[in-house]
Amino acid sequence: MKRGVAFVINGAVIGIGREQTMNLNDVEKIRTENPVVVNYANFVTPFLVANGLNAVGASPIMSDEASEADELVKLASAVVINAGAARRDGWPVIEQLCQSANKYHKPLILDPVAVGATEYRRELNFGLLERHQFDIIRGNIGEIAVLAGIEWQTRGIDAGDGDRDASDIVRECARKFNNVVIASGKVDYISDGNRVTSILNNTRLLPAIVGSGDLLSSISAAFAAISDNNFDAAVTASLVLSCSGELVDQKLNHQNLPGSFLSQLMDQLANISPEEIKAIMKVEEN
Amino acid sequence: MKRGVAFVINGAVIGIGREQTMNLNDVEKIRTENPVVVNYANFVTPFLVANGLNAVGASPIMSDEASEADELVKLASAVVINAGAARRDGWPVIEQLCQSANKYHKPLILDPVAVGATEYRRELNFGLLERHQFDIIRGNIGEIAVLAGIEWQTRGIDAGDGDRDASDIVRECARKFNNVVIASGKVDYISDGNRVTSILNNTRLLPAIVGSGDLLSSISAAFAAISDNNFDAAVTASLVLSCSGELVDQKLNHQNLPGSFLSQLMDQLANISPEEIKAIMKVEEN
Amino acid sequence: MKRGVAFVINGAVIGIGREQTMNLNDVEKIRTENPVVVNYANFVTPFLVANGLNAVGASPIMSDEASEADELVKLASAVVINAGAARRDGWPVIEQLCQSANKYHKPLILDPVAVGATEYRRELNFGLLERHQFDIIRGNIGEIAVLAGIEWQTRGIDAGDGDRDASDIVRECARKFNNVVIASGKVDYISDGNRVTSILNNTRLLPAIVGSGDLLSSISAAFAAISDNNFDAAVTASLVLSCSGELVDQKLNHQNLPGSFLSQLMDQLANISPEEIKAIMKVEEN
Repeated sequence: MKRGVAFVINGAVIGIGREQTMNLNDVEKIRTENPVVVNYANFVTPFLVANGLNAVGASPIMSDEASEADELVKLASAVVINAGAARRDGWPVIEQLCQSANKYHKPLILDPVAVGATEYRRELNFGLLERHQFDIIRGNIGEIAVLAGIEWQTRGIDAGDGDRDASDIVRECARKFNNVVIASGKVDYISDGNRVTSILNNTRLLPAIVGSGDLLSSISAAFAAISDNNFDAAVTASLVLSCSGELVDQKLNHQNLPGSFLSQLMDQLANISPEEIKAIMKVEEN
Repeated sequence: MKRGVAFVINGAVIGIGREQTMNLNDVEKIRTENPVVVNYANFVTPFLVANGLNAVGASPIMSDEASEADELVKLASAVVINAGAARRDGWPVIEQLCQSANKYHKPLILDPVAVGATEYRRELNFGLLERHQFDIIRGNIGEIAVLAGIEWQTRGIDAGDGDRDASDIVRECARKFNNVVIASGKVDYISDGNRVTSILNNTRLLPAIVGSGDLLSSISAAFAAISDNNFDAAVTASLVLSCSGELVDQKLNHQNLPGSFLSQLMDQLANISPEEIKAIMKVEEN
Repeated sequence: MKRGVAFVINGAVIGIGREQTMNLNDVEKIRTENPVVVNYANFVTPFLVANGLNAVGASPIMSDEASEADELVKLASAVVINAGAARRDGWPVIEQLCQSANKYHKPLILDPVAVGATEYRRELNFGLLERHQFDIIRGNIGEIAVLAGIEWQTRGIDAGDGDRDASDIVRECARKFNNVVIASGKVDYISDGNRVTSILNNTRLLPAIVGSGDLLSSISAAFAAISDNNFDAAVTASLVLSCSGELVDQKLNHQNLPGSFLSQLMDQLANISPEEIKAIMKVEEN
């Protein structure tokens, strides 16, 4: 794996500047503040996302009805739009949730599931990004490249190989939409348009499980709800999920056991501490 | 915890009067009768509810299509309306299910999820309660208070503290709608408008898991399907779920492990016996 | 259990003719080819189906939007229509998926959930079978009998007793629709209209779990995607799932633990080898 330009912190505090901004205490703060996160969920993974939000200390609300969207956003602390299985007749719900999130200044997160796969998904996601200000976008590197307008496949980027190109893509996407972007996979790349932080703790199983990306999107929203800083919220969310995955992977002796992994991941998310994260985190900055 | 007015039974049979009405043999009867329960489910928890119904010995049917609602109710033994994520275009399905349940005299159960959160949910739930006779309502104490028309939050009621106020609320709600009401949480309160029975077996994890309330609503329907008495069905359902939770909590040494808890809860529901329930149940009456 | 007319192979290779056609190497091939399967899912079991497809080595896509159906089918290798909870306004999606599957010659699989229960479901399923060529139909014996036009209930067939009648039903259904039919249950019967292969490895828990049938339908699609032969794909899919179930059942000492079973089934699906299947498979042909 190629290392980033800047410094590498492996299983240690992350350097003086970052130590102040990356507030791992939020891992405990979220359990007392218990922020409410409204999710426009896809129908495949809502149970995982809801119980995963619960496990980290947040409270999920899920709704598919436009006429209550404004009220729900008002009482919530963050809003996630998962565009994974939206039907066209669900667009008014999404539209209202986004409008209200921007109106009430609640963090708004987009998960552009498979945006490159169909014209329908491009229309949905680019339309949303044009009309609303999203605070965080969370996708895999392929989805982020589509949003950034980069033909990543022809450049042969492998999401998991730590290639510099992935950093460029998330940075460009964040600049384009003036927000924070997470490209998650074997490595998570997070950028605010200037900095790029890479989280190297991911395991083989975590990105393979259907719904782990959806969960990261919603956990990012939960941390954005209790943080002043979307970049740090995204880094914390990524660390919580990927370090939890790594701890479970260790307990399972790195066996390929997706059922046990999923169940124990919920256990781990409910218990992971800032100290455990600091002890194993592998973070690169450039 | 304050105790109720009447007698307290802790880990023992529940007294002469109740011993005859509360038929824990239904815990075994349901496994041979295998009642079919039609669920209008929300999209977040249907898998948990379906497999939970399966585990206790019932058979779930879930549908979202109005034109088959009447036939499904006819072949079923009970009907549950979970109003947790209903879109307005799902109202005709709900309406038909309720009409048919009343027409065929099948037990009809309402789960008024987050009824206090939005005007939309109040309109849906109060409309249903006006037009149809629900045999059991199952919610948390906040939802039940909204239905009863009591401003519970200003009265400082904590759902889990065993306060007499919670008993009053469920009793008032049951009187208002002339049925049986369960307010579930750390303590479950069950009333038929006169009696209030409290089940004190709940654990920290059970009410915290997304979907445990939905599951209790559907299990109540399953026991109502094989019982002549909705009050006893509600008590049995609450005991089965809360005692199963307590047994799992013991096996997990009271650790906060939501993933393991959920998986083992399914195991326990499939095996819990009347004797195990009698050995650990904590029931108050007043 | 009555044995079939032909030969019985118990825990051994399946005889010279079949040894050549039944290609258990597909159990490994699927993990490298990673075929994409588009699912029109019901809302109850999509998470199980998606992660189960993942576990065997395929990649799930789920969508409920007609305008992207053609593109999704084009990029996929197989299509499954699960008619378990389709609303009437979902019919255009289903219709487009089926048209595109036939147009692009992608294997098309039907799961006619509870087709006998309501007029609505008969209209949906028979309409689909009239307008489109399905390559595989997977249901329980009752559903397959309805499609075949056989009044099976009056003939007293128990899906699990290995009765010859079940073989007749799947054969007739396969002849009627000119395809491959799987009737799954305690025994899985698979026919192409001539041969009938019975898989006797099922356990009590596997058919009892909500979603195990849906999963078999989708796994059949995944194997059809990498095989030239739908009959062998169906046999392989059935063996993978039922032998995985049996291995988990052994690990659990045949206890009735549906939660643990489900979690460990995912683990087993990700690891089962052709050798493990050959060592325990019980296959009858007639």
